[in-house]
Amino acid sequence: MSNGSTGGDNLTWHEGEVSRSDRTEMFGQSGATLWFTGLSGSGKSTIAVALEAELHRRGKLSYRLDGDNIRLGINKNLGFSAEDRTENIRRIGEVAKLFADAGVITLSSFISPYASDRDGVRDLHNAAGLPFIEVHVDCPLDEAERRDPKGLYKKARAGEIRNFTGIDDPYEAPPAPELTLRTDQLTLEQEVEQIIAYLIECGVLRSG
Amino acid sequence: MSNGSTGGDNLTWHEGEVSRSDRTEMFGQSGATLWFTGLSGSGKSTIAVALEAELHRRGKLSYRLDGDNIRLGINKNLGFSAEDRTENIRRIGEVAKLFADAGVITLSSFISPYASDRDGVRDLHNAAGLPFIEVHVDCPLDEAERRDPKGLYKKARAGEIRNFTGIDDPYEAPPAPELTLRTDQLTLEQEVEQIIAYLIECGVLRSG
Repeated sequence: MSNGSTGGDNLTWHEGEVSRSDRTEMFGQSGATLWFTGLSGSGKSTIAVALEAELHRRGKLSYRLDGDNIRLGINKNLGFSAEDRTENIRRIGEVAKLFADAGVITLSSFISPYASDRDGVRDLHNAAGLPFIEVHVDCPLDEAERRDPKGLYKKARAGEIRNFTGIDDPYEAPPAPELTLRTDQLTLEQEVEQIIAYLIECGVLRSG
Repeated sequence: MSNGSTGGDNLTWHEGEVSRSDRTEMFGQSGATLWFTGLSGSGKSTIAVALEAELHRRGKLSYRLDGDNIRLGINKNLGFSAEDRTENIRRIGEVAKLFADAGVITLSSFISPYASDRDGVRDLHNAAGLPFIEVHVDCPLDEAERRDPKGLYKKARAGEIRNFTGIDDPYEAPPAPELTLRTDQLTLEQEVEQIIAYLIECGVLRSG
């Protein structure tokens, strides 16, 4: 091995790349992306935070992607044009895919109103053989608007924000999500329980 | 909690966000970015693969970012203009930062020839309170060119590739990297050992 890092003697190292199944065996979980989609105020981030805590309690590694760590980071050079909104979701999808490939249970919380953008992320995961679990965080508009946790609906109704999903821009509900959570009918505990049950059922988490 | 996910009863959940120290305690490691920089053929990827295997053997979670999973993924809409090359490194830096924030030891292998681009990634990590460990994979040009594992130097010398680092584009060596590995003088085992020792010394890995 005196010739350094690219000599032929090093082939055994290259053959030793850590595989997905190596990671799964080590950590008792498979990488996957949970893609929470729904109206502003529907409860996406709240569920993701609670789910992350429950997964951590079970010794599992998850990570949340949301506006806080994406919009000011990798997507800080994107605006709100139609093209940039699509690129926004594309990049998030690529990041989620990398985390899933690393063996992490990735919790992505973005309104992501357009079915074609979400389907693009699903295709990315399918092509890589990684689970993509679309979770429709389903809350009627009037209830989301009543909650209005950030005061955004009020501003949209007043015309201070344009192209606001549900007001003057469409939300395209997923036709066939892996999970639908009616957050106006379920408690947060029930929502987390349903997701955990699904993750066990589909083999992302090992039960027992 | 009957009002769903954004009711005031849920505050305890929000307070329960998984912190970096929660992750460190669980996994016995702190998230960090190891940024391998050096000429084409210097041995960056070879070291990253071997280090990943050794970390896995120790029960630690690492993930490699390299051309294979970045250029065809999140950066597939970038070319090789000066502007795009800078954006390429910026996005990789942002992705690495997210992985480090998640508690993963991130191994980034890109030539990244310009000091200003690398310093930008360092600044990102510093601002987030995350370790950025610049590893200069230092191999003399004539040795890297002799190895020429992908035949790129030959093409660059023949003028078939333009702006090739080390031939007709500069490589700006890091003035103060955390680690320098002379891959023409060390074995791969020695290189991995030096990195592991550094990770223990700086507290990213817990010894014993």
